[in-house]
Amino acid sequence: MARWEPNAAQRLQQAAMALFVERGYAEATVAEIADQAGLTKRSFFNHFPDKREVLFVGAILFEASVMEQLAAAGDDLDPLDAAVGALTRSGVELAQYSEFAQARRELIASSAELQERELIKMASLAAAISEALGRRGVSARTATLTAQVAITVFTTAYSDWVDDPAADLDTLTQRALADLRQAVAATAALTTARGIS
Amino acid sequence: MARWEPNAAQRLQQAAMALFVERGYAEATVAEIADQAGLTKRSFFNHFPDKREVLFVGAILFEASVMEQLAAAGDDLDPLDAAVGALTRSGVELAQYSEFAQARRELIASSAELQERELIKMASLAAAISEALGRRGVSARTATLTAQVAITVFTTAYSDWVDDPAADLDTLTQRALADLRQAVAATAALTTARGIS
Repeated sequence: MARWEPNAAQRLQQAAMALFVERGYAEATVAEIADQAGLTKRSFFNHFPDKREVLFVGAILFEASVMEQLAAAGDDLDPLDAAVGALTRSGVELAQYSEFAQARRELIASSAELQERELIKMASLAAAISEALGRRGVSARTATLTAQVAITVFTTAYSDWVDDPAADLDTLTQRALADLRQAVAATAALTTARGIS
Repeated sequence: MARWEPNAAQRLQQAAMALFVERGYAEATVAEIADQAGLTKRSFFNHFPDKREVLFVGAILFEASVMEQLAAAGDDLDPLDAAVGALTRSGVELAQYSEFAQARRELIASSAELQERELIKMASLAAAISEALGRRGVSARTATLTAQVAITVFTTAYSDWVDDPAADLDTLTQRALADLRQAVAATAALTTARGIS
């Protein structure tokens, strides 16, 4: 019978992040992480398939939350607002647990392997949002475009929030949306001036 | 002394695409590709580091072209217009050579490995565009946001063009930009109605 290990996943995650920051992601081993958490390697592998997943377990919870939020979004919301709203609310939920957001961002930036993993997770999230918008009756083309733009808006706001954790994520999302609106409005003025559109 | 092999890269690419479509990407070997092109395996590896790169050699040329276009863009252009314009002009240039665009898209969709490679190439392109916008005096945050949005607009238009190769890529880009503008305008109306912005 397995021993009862209170908060094992959380303890392993904290130990891993501390070791990654202290010694570098590549250098910290699973044995050391388990040891630092007062647990065994076997216990580590009960909670994470590999060392890398310690950094991405939040992304899985995040995608699940975004899907829930999108399924519950009112029918009257336009697609971009529904997607950005779902991302923001899920981000706020996740933010409570993400004491390591800044360290995580730096670790990912330091490793090509981790950057690839992050890209794949974001592409999976974009595909899931696009499918959910499809279920709301949005065409595949608009759903893909909207999902990508919503993720761009959200990642901009999330990055602003990592820089300034005291700020409100919803406010930062509205600011990123306003910045996008301004960027797009500038091109509108230009194409009109050219007589293209 | 190496034999003179006219259009070797192009012949290898055509042979590879034909074999990938006929037998599947995973099944076609480099030896078969070289054989079909009337060349040797050694000749293949003189032109491509591996089988996968046959599908991505265009992406390297594309990024180089986008960088050239951005460096030459007028100072008066706003960032999004400069980025979308550079992508579109480079896309038109590349389109002349891309007789395999549709087959390529299907092959990439069929393989997780190829999808990852495509994600990495797009992230590299986004980072390069963002840096080029930085050299135009755009802040890092706006440059990242703008580069992502420009790529979303362009990939939407490019996908439309693969569906309908007779259409004009510049017109499709303008349509994708107009769709983005409409999506963003809808959220603007909503946030104003809510009194958020």
